[in-house]
Amino acid sequence: MAYFDAASAAPLHPVARQALQASLDEGWADPARLYREGRRARMLLDAAREAAAEAVGCRADELVFTSSGTRAVHTGVAGALAGRRRTGRHLIVSAVEHSSVLHAAEVHEADGGTVTRVAVDRAGSVDPAAYAAALRADTALACLQSANHEVGTEQPVAEVAEAYRAAGVPLLVDAAQSLGWGPVSGGWSVLTGSAHKWGGPSGVGLLVVRKGVRFAPQGPVDERESGRAAGFENIPAIVAAAASLRAVRAEAAREGARLRELTERIRARVPELVPDVEVVGDPVRRLPGVVTFSCLYVDGETLLHELDRAGFSVSSGSSCTSSTLTPSHVLKAMGVLSEGNVRVSLPPGTATDDVVRFLEVLPGAVAGVREKLGAPSAVSIVREEDVLVVDALGKLCPLPVIELAKVIGEVPVGGRVRVLADDEAARLDIPAWCAMRGQEYLGEEPADRGTAYVVRRTA
Amino acid sequence: MAYFDAASAAPLHPVARQALQASLDEGWADPARLYREGRRARMLLDAAREAAAEAVGCRADELVFTSSGTRAVHTGVAGALAGRRRTGRHLIVSAVEHSSVLHAAEVHEADGGTVTRVAVDRAGSVDPAAYAAALRADTALACLQSANHEVGTEQPVAEVAEAYRAAGVPLLVDAAQSLGWGPVSGGWSVLTGSAHKWGGPSGVGLLVVRKGVRFAPQGPVDERESGRAAGFENIPAIVAAAASLRAVRAEAAREGARLRELTERIRARVPELVPDVEVVGDPVRRLPGVVTFSCLYVDGETLLHELDRAGFSVSSGSSCTSSTLTPSHVLKAMGVLSEGNVRVSLPPGTATDDVVRFLEVLPGAVAGVREKLGAPSAVSIVREEDVLVVDALGKLCPLPVIELAKVIGEVPVGGRVRVLADDEAARLDIPAWCAMRGQEYLGEEPADRGTAYVVRRTA
Repeated sequence: MAYFDAASAAPLHPVARQALQASLDEGWADPARLYREGRRARMLLDAAREAAAEAVGCRADELVFTSSGTRAVHTGVAGALAGRRRTGRHLIVSAVEHSSVLHAAEVHEADGGTVTRVAVDRAGSVDPAAYAAALRADTALACLQSANHEVGTEQPVAEVAEAYRAAGVPLLVDAAQSLGWGPVSGGWSVLTGSAHKWGGPSGVGLLVVRKGVRFAPQGPVDERESGRAAGFENIPAIVAAAASLRAVRAEAAREGARLRELTERIRARVPELVPDVEVVGDPVRRLPGVVTFSCLYVDGETLLHELDRAGFSVSSGSSCTSSTLTPSHVLKAMGVLSEGNVRVSLPPGTATDDVVRFLEVLPGAVAGVREKLGAPSAVSIVREEDVLVVDALGKLCPLPVIELAKVIGEVPVGGRVRVLADDEAARLDIPAWCAMRGQEYLGEEPADRGTAYVVRRTA
Repeated sequence: MAYFDAASAAPLHPVARQALQASLDEGWADPARLYREGRRARMLLDAAREAAAEAVGCRADELVFTSSGTRAVHTGVAGALAGRRRTGRHLIVSAVEHSSVLHAAEVHEADGGTVTRVAVDRAGSVDPAAYAAALRADTALACLQSANHEVGTEQPVAEVAEAYRAAGVPLLVDAAQSLGWGPVSGGWSVLTGSAHKWGGPSGVGLLVVRKGVRFAPQGPVDERESGRAAGFENIPAIVAAAASLRAVRAEAAREGARLRELTERIRARVPELVPDVEVVGDPVRRLPGVVTFSCLYVDGETLLHELDRAGFSVSSGSSCTSSTLTPSHVLKAMGVLSEGNVRVSLPPGTATDDVVRFLEVLPGAVAGVREKLGAPSAVSIVREEDVLVVDALGKLCPLPVIELAKVIGEVPVGGRVRVLADDEAARLDIPAWCAMRGQEYLGEEPADRGTAYVVRRTA
């Protein structure tokens, strides 16, 4: 049994468990009270804030604890936008931000603000120059993750922060995926984090607002946490979050190197072991424990089930959308294959043997799913003039791509195949398949039902 | 050492601790995931929701877990108002709601909505007829607490709910103080609660929205908890909250009767043991463990310090404003004395001996504070025509009242005293003192500085 989904939630670190249990007795009272139990709770809260601030690299009075990373993002984006409302209502985000950032941006848009979504390259990284070029006179805020949660690519935060500082525009960094590995360097203005990503308990997020950054918290007034996080403080969990952050940081250099080696092995071996696979994300500038790949002709959910049966817990597509199984917005923005997508994110302490066993199991699991899907299909194929038409209407991904791959050999080099499909994933996966296979993607054509994707055989 | 501030936060119930520790191993993963650890987390979450729903008296799919009671109120008020926006933007609250409700009402007002604040009687209770009379054609929502957090008075929720149901207007009940003692009866539409008030852990609130109630969650979209509570679920704490709610309910009848007897003893004995004291709140329709009284000529904060030194943790004024020491909005709305205010709220399991010892210690503590404050005063007293003028400008409560009490005997029956004061608490405490002492309060008069409060000696 191996849990390889640390990017969703890491198991509780032993130090977090210890600190949580110890502070259940001391930290339950209201820290705003002046009596003994309240003073004790206040002391624990203050000490946790000091420890967390040291790990983040900020002043203690710049950091508040929220009830989750998502809440930190929502509060941070809304407060920073409101604080600079007089300057303007333009917000910049990267196209591969976490859903909490993108949903906050949607709310801003619905409320009359404007949003620029900066594109990423095939590795999932923003170009600092392109990111800086998005700046306008009315830009109130920009958001950039420290590292991507789905593919592990690290963003050039320090360079971007430098450009934004020069322009006087605050940069909010969602550091949820990287904070356990080290502080975010550079001149960011607002930073958010989430304890359960580094082995802390659920229910604790961090929101840091640098002194001097204009910030106007939205929503009903509440005195707690400098007016930036409404509701009674969850002190035992906060203490556990801060203690475990220190603990994972103490292990970060050694453990980071070890996990990087393990994920490097997966990156190298998977394409050798599994045919028709694409490893995605930046091969060098990336988180130590995350590796993501997509397998052609495979249904992601079925593959996850096969891997789960074999004792491996991994995720697919987007870490925040797998319950609805929409194609991941991150893979879409990168322009890479989304079908058969698997994200492996190793928690600290992962045994080498488990990774070895995963590499043994994976090829059979993928082959099994492919065999099932490659079985009799009810897709109709018609030759129309000089085009082979594959009617995959009503067929879900990856079937349209599987059928395309089956028939491409039936047209001469230079000939065309038109795939009719109504599954949204085809829009991403057919071009991605062409890129992987060296075929030419000619684009979409209107169709009576669904969309026609046209491919020219070039090889 | 006795902790008598359960209405702020109850110590963790042993069942909560047990459930929390047990579920730290099983409940850390993402319940939206399909692999083993995710399914286990989902099972725990579902079971906790079933248990909590049974205790509340609702369907499991009507209940979501939030990160605090405050958050449940903010989300509940905003969502219910938005859901009925087409009907109108009128909100009704009682004047003695928890600050989270009143602050949500302020946001609604700032956003262009209208708010009616329904008055309470001297016992802190709303009149159901007056509450129903506040209804308008454009009323979107009404909020009424099940019981008051500062004085323990139970509100006539069932009667009010009946009237509102007949009018088709949803009633939101803030049940934070009473949910551990039993379900809220009657036809409410929305209900909120807070686990740390019943001995559950911090970081868990409840929000219940009955089927059929129009509800539109505000803020950025988030899939978790039916879109009503953004952020990763804190499952170990949720499991502990649900388990401890069942546990305290099982003990509620016996423990409620026992605490009621202890608070009854405090209600009866305090006026016998301490001169110039007013016990406030409804003597019958009240929470079992809460008793509140105000001591004339006493500074609340100093008294709290004295009691803390003697080993008793109690609160003063408003449970949510004691850190800023503003006079409580609840006591103000009731028109009772706010000076020297003490709230005793006994946690389940309070030993009789601790209450006995409290009653032994209290008279000396009050006398000590009075002695300190009764000492030399720099207040100037001038006789002007037929009025004695006491200049208490710059003097903080309770000094203006102390000086008034000192000089009232110096004017003949029928004569007047004019107290000049600029401490806001005087506006509440001088009339309250007159009511307690059988003197006639004539009202305020303009003054060059501060306000002049005029009193006629009638006894």
